[in-house]
Amino acid sequence: MPGVISLAGGIPSSELFDREGLSIATQKVVAENFNDAFQYGLTEGTVELRQQLVGLCQERGITTSPEQLLITSGSQQALDLLMRALVNPGDVFVVERPTYLAALQILSLNEADVKSVGSDEHGMIVDELEALLKTTRIKGVYLVPTFGNPSGTTLSASRREQLVKLAEQYHFVIVEDDPYGAISFTETREKTLLQVATERGSQENVVYTSTFSKILAPGLRVGWIVLPEWMKQKVAIIKQATDLHANSFTQSLVSAYLTLDRLNPQIELIREVYKKKCLSLSTFLHQELDEHITFNQPQGGMFLWASFRYEFDATRWLQQTLEKGVVYVPGEFFFSDHADKKTLRFSYATATEEQLYEAVQRLKSAL
Amino acid sequence: MPGVISLAGGIPSSELFDREGLSIATQKVVAENFNDAFQYGLTEGTVELRQQLVGLCQERGITTSPEQLLITSGSQQALDLLMRALVNPGDVFVVERPTYLAALQILSLNEADVKSVGSDEHGMIVDELEALLKTTRIKGVYLVPTFGNPSGTTLSASRREQLVKLAEQYHFVIVEDDPYGAISFTETREKTLLQVATERGSQENVVYTSTFSKILAPGLRVGWIVLPEWMKQKVAIIKQATDLHANSFTQSLVSAYLTLDRLNPQIELIREVYKKKCLSLSTFLHQELDEHITFNQPQGGMFLWASFRYEFDATRWLQQTLEKGVVYVPGEFFFSDHADKKTLRFSYATATEEQLYEAVQRLKSAL
Repeated sequence: MPGVISLAGGIPSSELFDREGLSIATQKVVAENFNDAFQYGLTEGTVELRQQLVGLCQERGITTSPEQLLITSGSQQALDLLMRALVNPGDVFVVERPTYLAALQILSLNEADVKSVGSDEHGMIVDELEALLKTTRIKGVYLVPTFGNPSGTTLSASRREQLVKLAEQYHFVIVEDDPYGAISFTETREKTLLQVATERGSQENVVYTSTFSKILAPGLRVGWIVLPEWMKQKVAIIKQATDLHANSFTQSLVSAYLTLDRLNPQIELIREVYKKKCLSLSTFLHQELDEHITFNQPQGGMFLWASFRYEFDATRWLQQTLEKGVVYVPGEFFFSDHADKKTLRFSYATATEEQLYEAVQRLKSAL
Repeated sequence: MPGVISLAGGIPSSELFDREGLSIATQKVVAENFNDAFQYGLTEGTVELRQQLVGLCQERGITTSPEQLLITSGSQQALDLLMRALVNPGDVFVVERPTYLAALQILSLNEADVKSVGSDEHGMIVDELEALLKTTRIKGVYLVPTFGNPSGTTLSASRREQLVKLAEQYHFVIVEDDPYGAISFTETREKTLLQVATERGSQENVVYTSTFSKILAPGLRVGWIVLPEWMKQKVAIIKQATDLHANSFTQSLVSAYLTLDRLNPQIELIREVYKKKCLSLSTFLHQELDEHITFNQPQGGMFLWASFRYEFDATRWLQQTLEKGVVYVPGEFFFSDHADKKTLRFSYATATEEQLYEAVQRLKSAL
């Protein structure tokens, strides 16, 4: 709607797209890799891109090989393939409260019995999971452990260790969804769950997935999965039946882009800009709405998860804020159960500083 | 393998790709539609491409609207989405004998109870379906009615009418998979099943799907579904959970290509070249293997379906032909049951005339 400022979308800022780099990469594809880019390809993805991803994973502390990697149409498809491979109807899958909305949709589509455990400023409360495990056989745990969507929080090192140990003890799979991990506002990095597990020799319990959507461009629809040995064949069979293979053209495009050595500078730019926007939104919220709203300061990613300090219906409030010209996502949509209606998710990725300021003014006027 | 001539693959010839047109279209995307091409898009596909597809469908005798269309990652994904929407475990779905291999994989993945009916030179034997319907409740029928894969045959006009009437009488869904319909070697065109149904007012019984894979380039992964009203929402929800939306970049690329008015000339080129190759392969087979092998002359598409005139194991024979340096796909893989082991599928799309000649010589020497 014209004039409405959206803090709702989970989309990255188009203004930060590396227009020059992506243009050069596109030209390279057409000039140097035409036939492969327009022809059918391998189910697992191109060998070139998988080789490059081994290096990219290494930068994230993950040691893998092209044979363990499968390229997907974004990490959304990674989740769909994984849940189709893992979940039989009625299997218990555990998510965080709150959790990524589309993961709930996929779990529901696969008829999982979804259970949730709470989270706080250090991410999933793994003690709650441990209590659940004493009474319930679970197939797996799905989480976004770093700069989570919607919570913006990061699972602490001790909880990572605890979660990985529980997976060893109770034999469940951890699906580690990491679209935002590279977009850190500090130099502190938690190890991925896959790295923690690998160091303990239990890497077969963790499936890691990530994507170029938030660090390069989502329209490319290129994500990837690092698969444990026992899942490789099953996931590949499902991938083939689902859509044969990921887009040849945009896989080539990403490969060409990676050869330009522009990805890390591009990620630096995104980190810097999102950090600035996040700090601005935080500052404006503190200044204007501190008596009403509380939140944890995000250390990375695209989302600020806020909560009213008192009982409040954030879903109904959206009507009023819309009239004032600002929208967000009501928090209750991110819960599989025990919805907390006083919560709400703000994205700071696409709005300008001026819009963020104006948005907070409008929120205030809607109270 | 070096030196081995493959008549096995179902892939189109890269040499026919419209290199100039696709290059121009790619440049147009980067120059004129950059942000949309790299950003997230609509679940149903871009409005521009869906509007263009309305025109393309019209050329095929199908009247539709952008609201009825959903863009998929190739028609393989169309089948997956449709079967996920339609099939509950145990539902009976009927296929032809032989049928498209990957359709069997999808039906199996969705736990359909697959039943098959025979086919002859006029396509599916609809009388057999009618007999089955008297005893069995079926959810749907899947077929490639025009220049089928693997059979190369086309369902006759009277059988089309008969099939559509049965769907009305017994309330099942027809999934009409049409990747090859445009690649006709003659000026004769059968009406699509969707058109036949529409003329009878029963278009709600038919789902039509097609793709740019065989007429433009498969690496683009752009296909589409014409959805009846009652399926639209369900399929869109599944599409969103599956991978959010089709590739933004290659949707834009196809749209840009379509504005160049090069698609129809490109299809003419493909028709002409494949027709020539098909005639050559047919001639060589008649000349060299007539006493062993029989087949129906394809009138379009990419495949020639042959059968030994006597009991024969075409799967075992592959070992011997491989030693002689030629491969094909054994027919038995295309059957859900009652496999006919003396059948085999040849593709003539990618081999040169010389290779087709040499391939037949090698087949002969392997007997």
